[in-house]
Amino acid sequence: MAYRDRILDLRKDRRFKYILIFKNHGEAAGASLEHTHSQLIALPVVPKRVREEVDGARAHYNFKERCIFCDIIRQETEKSARLIAENQAFAVLAPFAPRFPFEIWIIPKMHQCAFEESQKPEFEQLAPILKDMLSRLDRVLEWPAYNYIIHTAPIGESTEDYYHWHLEIMPKLTKVAGFEWGTGFYINPTPPEESAKFLREAAQPPAAPTDALQKGGLEPA
Amino acid sequence: MAYRDRILDLRKDRRFKYILIFKNHGEAAGASLEHTHSQLIALPVVPKRVREEVDGARAHYNFKERCIFCDIIRQETEKSARLIAENQAFAVLAPFAPRFPFEIWIIPKMHQCAFEESQKPEFEQLAPILKDMLSRLDRVLEWPAYNYIIHTAPIGESTEDYYHWHLEIMPKLTKVAGFEWGTGFYINPTPPEESAKFLREAAQPPAAPTDALQKGGLEPA
Repeated sequence: MAYRDRILDLRKDRRFKYILIFKNHGEAAGASLEHTHSQLIALPVVPKRVREEVDGARAHYNFKERCIFCDIIRQETEKSARLIAENQAFAVLAPFAPRFPFEIWIIPKMHQCAFEESQKPEFEQLAPILKDMLSRLDRVLEWPAYNYIIHTAPIGESTEDYYHWHLEIMPKLTKVAGFEWGTGFYINPTPPEESAKFLREAAQPPAAPTDALQKGGLEPA
Repeated sequence: MAYRDRILDLRKDRRFKYILIFKNHGEAAGASLEHTHSQLIALPVVPKRVREEVDGARAHYNFKERCIFCDIIRQETEKSARLIAENQAFAVLAPFAPRFPFEIWIIPKMHQCAFEESQKPEFEQLAPILKDMLSRLDRVLEWPAYNYIIHTAPIGESTEDYYHWHLEIMPKLTKVAGFEWGTGFYINPTPPEESAKFLREAAQPPAAPTDALQKGGLEPA
């Protein structure tokens, strides 16, 4: 995968402490170019949001001696109200406390802190499941603007026990306004169980066999 | 002032830990109603962003034994490159590290942690200087969308030594996209010295005396 190769190369440059990969799609998500594109930015510091997430994961690990993302996968695949889809390598779910309606997390089932250290099955199965999720969003929400961000480990920190890379998709249906700026809290009118249900049901049905169509007695278009 | 009276009343309710006052103006700022309006929300917790700012102010106080906002006022009114305006009670400036182009802070010169504890001169002089700033933004940026937020002390905490209430205006000219979501860092192409200069020069000139106009030899419109 192109992302991985670029990261592995940039990682050699000791100035960089974090490599961020993201995509902005649609005007409301801040896309600056008309054609679809993703971006990679190498940073000389670990960003504030990443620090918070990594520190949070470490706090959970120190308390429970387990990875919080592994815990989330176990809990969500058992209970399934917020589970949207899964394949051999990934679980896809609506997080327990989404900031935005229809927020989606794609988490590798294999514990791995760094995206670029993933193995072949992960890389082979990420693209199709991501594409599937984006096309479900298009079907359910009629081509929404969205951002997705790969959350991966900072470079050169020993986070392998407690951090777990994943990808977050954030559709931009609501506007961030004074309340969110003033508090850091997000008002989200859509419960994750509801968005998960819509997205589960938006799975592309397998192509109907020809004779079923004929028996259905539909008029040709 | 209506804000103060509502806060003083809500403060009596011991469930509330923070009272947030803000305004969303224009669609890009997330305004939900067409007519201009501000909002007050009483919260049972101290919001994350407020906690960060209050903790930051305390850290500065512990280190320097001075209020950081008093330090900012002293430094900015001496150097003046980022000073936009002042009156007896308030200094208005473009902050040193603005998140957004044309971000404006209105800070009371009198050290006071809580907005609602301010005295008559503050309340009398806030409305005109806020109105002046918003109309300068309209002139310079042609009626931009904006949010403003009153940053005030949490209820029932002893922040009076180190916290200092103020009002922040954030015009919404740029879009928040994947980079900002992924990092918590903000890309701002406009240096504060430049926006301060534009906003200083946008001061409404005093009305020209009638005879100056006559001597100017202008054609009647």
